[in-house]
Amino acid sequence: MSNILEDIKKTIIRRLPEEVQVAQVEFEGPEVVIYTKNPEIITEKGDLVRNIAKDMRKRIIIRSDKSVLLDPEKTIEKVREIVPEAAEITDISFDEVTCEVIIVSKKPGLVIGKFGVTSRAITKNTGWAPKILRTPPISSEIIERIRNVNRNNSKERKKILQTLGARIHQGTKHDSDWARLTSMGGFKEVGRSCMLLQTPNSRVMLDCGVNVAGSDDKSSFPYLNVPEFNLEDLDGIIISHAHLDHCGFVPFLYHYGYEGPIYCTTPTRDLMTLLQLDHIDIAHREGNPLPFTSKHVQKSLKHTITLDYEEVTDISPDIKLTFHDAGHIIGSAMSHMHIGDGDHNIVYTGDFKFEKSRLLGAATHKFPRVETLVMESTYGGKDDVQPSRNSAEKELMKTIYRTLKRGGKVLIPVFAVGRAQELMIVLEEYMTHGMIEEVPIYIDGMIWEATAIHTARPEYLSKDLRDQIFHAGRNPFMSEPFIKVRKPDQRDDIIDGKPAIILSTSGMLTGGNSVEYFKKLCDDEKNTLIFVGYQSEGSLGRRIQKGWKKIPLKEDGKTNVYYVKMEVKTLSGFSGHSNRRQLMEYVKRLTVKPEKIITCHGDQYKTVDLATSIHRSYKIETRTPLNLEATRIL
Amino acid sequence: MSNILEDIKKTIIRRLPEEVQVAQVEFEGPEVVIYTKNPEIITEKGDLVRNIAKDMRKRIIIRSDKSVLLDPEKTIEKVREIVPEAAEITDISFDEVTCEVIIVSKKPGLVIGKFGVTSRAITKNTGWAPKILRTPPISSEIIERIRNVNRNNSKERKKILQTLGARIHQGTKHDSDWARLTSMGGFKEVGRSCMLLQTPNSRVMLDCGVNVAGSDDKSSFPYLNVPEFNLEDLDGIIISHAHLDHCGFVPFLYHYGYEGPIYCTTPTRDLMTLLQLDHIDIAHREGNPLPFTSKHVQKSLKHTITLDYEEVTDISPDIKLTFHDAGHIIGSAMSHMHIGDGDHNIVYTGDFKFEKSRLLGAATHKFPRVETLVMESTYGGKDDVQPSRNSAEKELMKTIYRTLKRGGKVLIPVFAVGRAQELMIVLEEYMTHGMIEEVPIYIDGMIWEATAIHTARPEYLSKDLRDQIFHAGRNPFMSEPFIKVRKPDQRDDIIDGKPAIILSTSGMLTGGNSVEYFKKLCDDEKNTLIFVGYQSEGSLGRRIQKGWKKIPLKEDGKTNVYYVKMEVKTLSGFSGHSNRRQLMEYVKRLTVKPEKIITCHGDQYKTVDLATSIHRSYKIETRTPLNLEATRIL
Ligand SMILES: [Zn+2]
Ligand SMILES: [Zn+2]
Ligand SMILES: [Zn+2]
Ligand SMILES: [Zn+2]
Ligand SMILES: [Zn+2]
Repeated sequence: MSNILEDIKKTIIRRLPEEVQVAQVEFEGPEVVIYTKNPEIITEKGDLVRNIAKDMRKRIIIRSDKSVLLDPEKTIEKVREIVPEAAEITDISFDEVTCEVIIVSKKPGLVIGKFGVTSRAITKNTGWAPKILRTPPISSEIIERIRNVNRNNSKERKKILQTLGARIHQGTKHDSDWARLTSMGGFKEVGRSCMLLQTPNSRVMLDCGVNVAGSDDKSSFPYLNVPEFNLEDLDGIIISHAHLDHCGFVPFLYHYGYEGPIYCTTPTRDLMTLLQLDHIDIAHREGNPLPFTSKHVQKSLKHTITLDYEEVTDISPDIKLTFHDAGHIIGSAMSHMHIGDGDHNIVYTGDFKFEKSRLLGAATHKFPRVETLVMESTYGGKDDVQPSRNSAEKELMKTIYRTLKRGGKVLIPVFAVGRAQELMIVLEEYMTHGMIEEVPIYIDGMIWEATAIHTARPEYLSKDLRDQIFHAGRNPFMSEPFIKVRKPDQRDDIIDGKPAIILSTSGMLTGGNSVEYFKKLCDDEKNTLIFVGYQSEGSLGRRIQKGWKKIPLKEDGKTNVYYVKMEVKTLSGFSGHSNRRQLMEYVKRLTVKPEKIITCHGDQYKTVDLATSIHRSYKIETRTPLNLEATRIL
Repeated sequence: MSNILEDIKKTIIRRLPEEVQVAQVEFEGPEVVIYTKNPEIITEKGDLVRNIAKDMRKRIIIRSDKSVLLDPEKTIEKVREIVPEAAEITDISFDEVTCEVIIVSKKPGLVIGKFGVTSRAITKNTGWAPKILRTPPISSEIIERIRNVNRNNSKERKKILQTLGARIHQGTKHDSDWARLTSMGGFKEVGRSCMLLQTPNSRVMLDCGVNVAGSDDKSSFPYLNVPEFNLEDLDGIIISHAHLDHCGFVPFLYHYGYEGPIYCTTPTRDLMTLLQLDHIDIAHREGNPLPFTSKHVQKSLKHTITLDYEEVTDISPDIKLTFHDAGHIIGSAMSHMHIGDGDHNIVYTGDFKFEKSRLLGAATHKFPRVETLVMESTYGGKDDVQPSRNSAEKELMKTIYRTLKRGGKVLIPVFAVGRAQELMIVLEEYMTHGMIEEVPIYIDGMIWEATAIHTARPEYLSKDLRDQIFHAGRNPFMSEPFIKVRKPDQRDDIIDGKPAIILSTSGMLTGGNSVEYFKKLCDDEKNTLIFVGYQSEGSLGRRIQKGWKKIPLKEDGKTNVYYVKMEVKTLSGFSGHSNRRQLMEYVKRLTVKPEKIITCHGDQYKTVDLATSIHRSYKIETRTPLNLEATRIL
């Protein structure tokens, strides 16, 4: 046991009444865990523990000592006895690392009980602390898989967390009198977002993405060979959200021996796992395998620490991290890093939308302090005006209405995460209100799994959606018109069948089932193809968007030509990124004025354009670093 | 033997005629050395060897194999036999690493002989290659010391050079497709100049200075804790010139285990050693010892590789270095680094003077290619106009004339290296032409040793001086009026004696004998104090410059008050730095227009002001990085 831990233990024992019977004090990642032989204390001495935590500036958790835990079999019996049947418990399991009994139920409110009375009764009677989860309304393979990884590796994970805790709490060796940010990818470009925050005491990576449109490894992967980056020195990786341009290269770090933590929200962890595994599969199928495998995704899972929004966490001797909602996709976060003892505050926005959508709330603009803001500038160019959400929705409906009326089918190629779920909510809303004809909405490819993850984490969705799900008890994702496409031959039936709407991946027709649908629907002028996302240069989607009417496609060695007779429509109001006006508005509305703003995640021109405008309008110093540059922030 | 060396050896043997009798091929730092058993070949096959070197893109030296070397005793006899007595040989010694016989003579031309006939005869008759040096007209302790270090460690040095050679010639592991520069000191400030040039294959440090005016270690020493800096990765250190703000922290690197090379010119090596040893002494005496000792200066000497101006040298697998005259102090160099295979050219000016002085030529402005220019901006501010050299000299003479006429003494506090020698030349010139009265010019403190080093390296002085020394056989430094102050009690005689001029260190009256002279001369209005260099805030010099008439000084625990009645004069035209106009002119007159200019070595305001003006006037992208920032240059 390290000296620091020994000191902490002494302080705790001195300050807690003897009856608590402290059996052990341990680090568990950023937290300090007290094991007590008197489990009732867990719920009774809340204030006292909170005060100690505040004075020590550490997060403290109290758990029962193993010696007072009821045997699992008997605990299950007891839980079923205490919790009313109406709660519909679907699973009870145990986490031996955290000494928690995990109770999965369709009505978690009934497991908690009024003012927590039921939950407290469980602890009192079994020793186990209940962790109460909602039964996912749509079953998710990925969530199951993650749960299994954690269940099967709880001992290893305990060790990982102890080591990490000792590192985080080791104390600073130097004054935190400077800080800097090295651009490792995604600066003056979009894709492979990656940067390294450095202080005299810490090294933290922010995002580690891949550019899926990159032409070779060099342009696809971040500059991990930047001289200041060493795996051994890395205190942690913060992932802003699950898109591959922000997390796609993380498994590589574990492949190369990284043993430290990843910090992200729960939905980010889930979706990240989904997208990383899919990326590995696709790359493998295309004969261009990635330099890591699913084994490394699994290893990264064992090192993932999920944090909620607004939760302050020590992640290194001189950095505290707090996530805030970024409004971009579910679980997307702005990372607020507090350096040293009030020395500096840096906020990295990640991708963000400064406007409510149907799916999510708007990005946070309230921070107690921000000296440096690192912000995305995807649509930071002067000309990046976009039609309003409202008019985009209207145009979508008119197009669908028109197509269905003439007996056609609507194909919407869409990226599995984010836009797909947003569209599902829009379509469901309009359909239940009779604004468009009630036809089947086929959900093909990975969209369904991503949607399942959305339904499992309703607390990360917009207030409107949460209200519908929790209070009205009505989950729009589970609405009747949505039909999951389960087998390949189902597709022929859909194509030969009645008018319908099809949401399918990939979003840029660069592969996946959307291309198969396109091939079979394109030569009928009754049908319509709707683009709702960005089509990158060189993609099939871009060519069609540009008006190509004759599309040669290579299939099994020969070239077939497809004629585009279907209607083609582009709707650009559904972006998950802030448009130019929203980016400027965001800076203006920040509750504190930053000293410095660094722009990233945008083409060179847009990054510079946004920075120049911010400087002119708000008199804030701006910087537009290139990849491989290090910018001083403190 | 490494594979690369094996390959090189094969190529060489294949291309040379058999009679050369190649005994061995070795790396010696950047060079490839061929040992032959047929020493005559050294002088006969020059063209062939040059062609091979050109094709291999390596520098090749041919030396005699040990087996054909005449015994040293006999060699000395033979040399004395061959060389005419008029050459006045003062020393003959042997370098067994280089298989050279070092012949030191007062008339080196006679050792070389017409078209090299004498020198060739020596090789033919002894096997040894003659290295012909000029006997220093003033003996220099430092040069003796350096010569001894090299002589006593020739085996160790051979090993160092072989290891280095293998490293330089190992070939590149990655494409040299990026390069960047990390600011480690001396950016937006003056003092502790230090930067790190990085490519995918190399790490090279440019300068490693101390800020002698720093208030603590943190503000005095460069940021060696910048994360991208690792001693083991360092391919080499380039030192622009001998001032401590550019080389003062080098011994620390050797203290911490650095085993790699330093590249500098010969005068820089000599003066650097002098100043580093003096710095260690002063710091020790002041009770604030440096984190290294003279042992580490000695260690650094063993690793020093001197290069001449305009000599292209491989210093890493993808960097070639060429020094050019910077005109700032003797041996000061601009470093031109060529990265990769035509990928990028970066020039670091170091401190430079873009104007001829009496002592030195003007800085080079001719480069075949420069993409990035890193330039000093000491006087880069809009207001940094300075009186012309000419008017400064006139003012100096008028002041001296006036003082001597009224029977007074002139005290010129001066920094030992650079300004002192410049003034000596000026004074000597005016005195021999009768423009000022012929009085003794006392040279006190380290100035004399620094002057000795100047006289030993006349090839680095201005063309005028060289002409005087070589052709007219007249060394102005050895002119009659100059008198070295040898003993402390001599000072009393000087003060009590007749009118005289005194040059003494330190230049800002922050210690040293200049303060002693000041104390004894200040209360006589006949005397004059002339400042010719910058007086930094807080120094005694600055206070006097500002007009203080009553100076309290602490001596042996009590405070004595000195009254300034002497005349006080400041002459600012003697700077070794380019003034604002010269800095701008330099950029304009460069033979190639750089793509990017980085300004450094100047106060924040001046660095930015110069950059802004360059950008406006010449439409060149400029950058003004802070310490700890990394700037992409390729
Ligand atoms: Zn995104
Ligand atoms: Zn992104
Ligand atoms: Zn915050
Ligand atoms: Zn200098
Ligand atoms: Zn300098």
